[in-house]
Amino acid sequence: MVSSLRLPSLTSLFSSPSILRPPPLLCRPHHHHKLSFPPPLPLTAAFSSQTTSASTTENPKKQTNQDQKVITPRSHDFNAWYLDIIANAELADYGPVRGTMVIRPYGYAIWEAIQDYLNVKFKETGHSNMYFPQFIPFSFIEKEASHVEGFSPELALVTIGGGKELEEKLVVRPTSETIVNHMFTQWIHSYRDLPLMVNQWANVTRWEMRTKPFVRTLEFLWQEGHTAHANPEEAEKEALQMIDVYTKFAYEHAAIPVIAGRKSKAETFAGADRTYTIEAMMGDRKALQAGTSHNLGQNFSRAFGTQFMDENGERQHVWQTSWAVSTRFVGGIIMTHGDDSGLMLPPKVAPIQVVIVPIWKKEDEKTGVLNAASSVKKVLQSAGIKVKLDDTDQRTPGWKFNFWEMKGVPLRIEIGPRDVLSASVVISRRDVPGKQGKVFGISMEPSILEAYVKDKLDEIQSSLLGRATSFRDSNIVDVSSYDELKAAITIGKWARGPWSASDADEQRVKEETGATIRCFPFEQPQGTKTCLMTGSPAEEVAIFAKSY
Amino acid sequence: MVSSLRLPSLTSLFSSPSILRPPPLLCRPHHHHKLSFPPPLPLTAAFSSQTTSASTTENPKKQTNQDQKVITPRSHDFNAWYLDIIANAELADYGPVRGTMVIRPYGYAIWEAIQDYLNVKFKETGHSNMYFPQFIPFSFIEKEASHVEGFSPELALVTIGGGKELEEKLVVRPTSETIVNHMFTQWIHSYRDLPLMVNQWANVTRWEMRTKPFVRTLEFLWQEGHTAHANPEEAEKEALQMIDVYTKFAYEHAAIPVIAGRKSKAETFAGADRTYTIEAMMGDRKALQAGTSHNLGQNFSRAFGTQFMDENGERQHVWQTSWAVSTRFVGGIIMTHGDDSGLMLPPKVAPIQVVIVPIWKKEDEKTGVLNAASSVKKVLQSAGIKVKLDDTDQRTPGWKFNFWEMKGVPLRIEIGPRDVLSASVVISRRDVPGKQGKVFGISMEPSILEAYVKDKLDEIQSSLLGRATSFRDSNIVDVSSYDELKAAITIGKWARGPWSASDADEQRVKEETGATIRCFPFEQPQGTKTCLMTGSPAEEVAIFAKSY
Repeated sequence: MVSSLRLPSLTSLFSSPSILRPPPLLCRPHHHHKLSFPPPLPLTAAFSSQTTSASTTENPKKQTNQDQKVITPRSHDFNAWYLDIIANAELADYGPVRGTMVIRPYGYAIWEAIQDYLNVKFKETGHSNMYFPQFIPFSFIEKEASHVEGFSPELALVTIGGGKELEEKLVVRPTSETIVNHMFTQWIHSYRDLPLMVNQWANVTRWEMRTKPFVRTLEFLWQEGHTAHANPEEAEKEALQMIDVYTKFAYEHAAIPVIAGRKSKAETFAGADRTYTIEAMMGDRKALQAGTSHNLGQNFSRAFGTQFMDENGERQHVWQTSWAVSTRFVGGIIMTHGDDSGLMLPPKVAPIQVVIVPIWKKEDEKTGVLNAASSVKKVLQSAGIKVKLDDTDQRTPGWKFNFWEMKGVPLRIEIGPRDVLSASVVISRRDVPGKQGKVFGISMEPSILEAYVKDKLDEIQSSLLGRATSFRDSNIVDVSSYDELKAAITIGKWARGPWSASDADEQRVKEETGATIRCFPFEQPQGTKTCLMTGSPAEEVAIFAKSY
Repeated sequence: MVSSLRLPSLTSLFSSPSILRPPPLLCRPHHHHKLSFPPPLPLTAAFSSQTTSASTTENPKKQTNQDQKVITPRSHDFNAWYLDIIANAELADYGPVRGTMVIRPYGYAIWEAIQDYLNVKFKETGHSNMYFPQFIPFSFIEKEASHVEGFSPELALVTIGGGKELEEKLVVRPTSETIVNHMFTQWIHSYRDLPLMVNQWANVTRWEMRTKPFVRTLEFLWQEGHTAHANPEEAEKEALQMIDVYTKFAYEHAAIPVIAGRKSKAETFAGADRTYTIEAMMGDRKALQAGTSHNLGQNFSRAFGTQFMDENGERQHVWQTSWAVSTRFVGGIIMTHGDDSGLMLPPKVAPIQVVIVPIWKKEDEKTGVLNAASSVKKVLQSAGIKVKLDDTDQRTPGWKFNFWEMKGVPLRIEIGPRDVLSASVVISRRDVPGKQGKVFGISMEPSILEAYVKDKLDEIQSSLLGRATSFRDSNIVDVSSYDELKAAITIGKWARGPWSASDADEQRVKEETGATIRCFPFEQPQGTKTCLMTGSPAEEVAIFAKSY
């Protein structure tokens, strides 16, 4: 049961086929100030500081563009591209213990954007934050043996505390259902104590063998919601409500057009009556399970004796839910929107929404340009826009353009001496490369500039969602036979087709194609359906895909 | 060195003397609606749900005031009083593993208020949040053996991961200096990478033997800031800046008049060149170290080889700081402001600033009263005030009065049928018991009500600080000889006197009186000083006290 909130690792053994989507060009902006852009140098993708090559130069003050790092083209090697972005955009680094990850400030700021949104939504929907200890007596886990059969291999165990061998080993929390129910049993007595709706933001530990930054790490950060209800209807409503909160976040903030639906019985986590999921299509067209919400029924309350007295004075076991989103979501954002120039962040989750790059050649131009840049910064800042002024003279404007593009900042404002004279700025969109994404002569007049920038940020936000939605839709094939399903999976696409076959058939698909049922989507096509595998009537279509 | 952020447990072995402060009366409000208040029943202080006695009654719908719990008088047994408040106000509960604590929603909300304030201040002062893994290779700790001599007994060690004995034991983070420096060494190369200023909100584990909720638990939550600088002046400035941030928070939000200062050499944490601290006086007049900021000098950077190339091309070790505030602060708030009626929260950290209790006897009064209560709630809510409407009909108004007083809510608004008729409300202050704290006939007119409530909240905020300051000042004795010092400590007070004696003398004071030097306060009296112990000239006064 402890594994009920686990992120799946089922299909991570299967590699993705070659990508059919045309590779994005490595576009560099053509700037009206005629800056020179050095040709990209090859880079060995490694987690190391991006801005520090000076330590090996003779004069640390002399900065060139030669240290600009280049990202492996996405089409060439999606995994290397992903790791390059994480290293170069300084999102994360490997920790000293295998499989652990240090989340660096820029990556953590994306997680904070996720937290800020969800935390408000959780409270609006009646949940309170709290904190459960991370050490769980091993006996709690054993109690749940039937549920955690496949899970105990992933436990980290504390056996020594205060210099002494412990009498009972302690499990470092992989998820908290067991300890939550241990406490709920003490707090819940009457129907008046229900519903009990809590959430915690916490770290969790799973001894994963195959790790990948953000997507699957030995320790990760998440929120786990836990609720107890007086009847099954409320629990079901809650589980659906929370997957809906996740779905809205994905669409409206992360610009990820997830498909929300129900897991198949085989993919429902042990201990849950039903698991709801949001499934996102990554740039390599593998699915990423980006959030789950479980209707746990009375499975945990029976195991832990979590009972209440109902309005008629009868003792009943509570009905429960749990739901989680983790730092994995940051990986989802990277793999949905990034391109060969690096990260591309939806404005609503971007730690920096606008970067200002001042440009000057002669020393006597500098003051005017920097003053103008500062006042533009103030205007945007007071409008609530997250803005950074990159005014260092250690780097050339060209270097900065590439760097902030690589960091995925949605909008760049360029201000040079001519712009100061005309009281205008040049604005470039991260999502539209080159000249097409660049607009000249936007007035510095505060109300005009503010309105323009906000409008563009909104446009980028929708544009990213639109682009990801087109990509998703052009990569889902409607299939009506197993052969069609296999063909779709073989070319790396997702297959959607009516399904009412057995668990054994589902297992067969997995073994033969590497794809699993990601979900039975909530949005179902109209009309009668015939199971693609058996030809029998089917009530629903399922979506099959390879996944992370 | 790992122990550099440790909260001290040095004097926890010494019990406090009997308290001289007159015990607060157990005051109950005399309400104009003439509600009856049942006499308080004795309570065995236990961590259990406050609202759930119905589970043992015949008819769970019939609620009486008989289940109202009573708190051990503070003057009778300060520790029992403290535990009663934590249990009855539902701040925390014991976890299943000895020494661990579950932070319940109401207690966690106080921690969130602390986080919200500090998080903004940390960012304003140039720090970024990030996250370091909690598992630290044991070799890192061994590397620091000279610093952690007294610390290793408190480590929790993971020895089994993924079902296998690990080759190297992993330490569950007790503090992060070692892993931080391991990473800093990889990120810092040039002076341009400095200052590096980060913070993390995290859980930490210390195998404490004598635990007490919030004050000292096996696992606790905190923030730990870590910075690296290019010269010692900047590091010193940073360490001072952060103790100043903590001081302001304590005064302006927690209404705790801490004394900020420098630790003595003996009390400076191993590995730090200097430790700054804020020391708070609890209701039993024991000192609580509520936050620390360390100037680490180059001690860690030398141990971990954290170097940078300066502007002249010379390699140097960085200068560092670290600073922390933990969930212990919640304990400090309880023990500073609480009284015999329960918790008393400063408005700025109160999860609920105003509770509205509607009062009706006849069913035909109910609608009018509840409508008025709802609209008052909306008025206050839209003014940004944290307000709760307790409209359950499961409890009597008298029960609710006691309950929300016990929960420490700063203001209570009562609305009965006569108030509805006169379009006014009754407002009671938590910090002024009985009739004196109650004002009748405050208009429900939104602008008047909002202004009145905001004004009262400000008044309570200052009043709590003023009261705590008076209490503190009346319990600090200026001493000029060791005899005077001993006399002050014997009657449970703090002693302040000039000190330039040796470490051995300091140790002698500790052994003979149970008091330690809490700090050399930043605010020093004018004039020449003579060491209270040796009669030699002294530059500073020190404050001696028993402490948690």
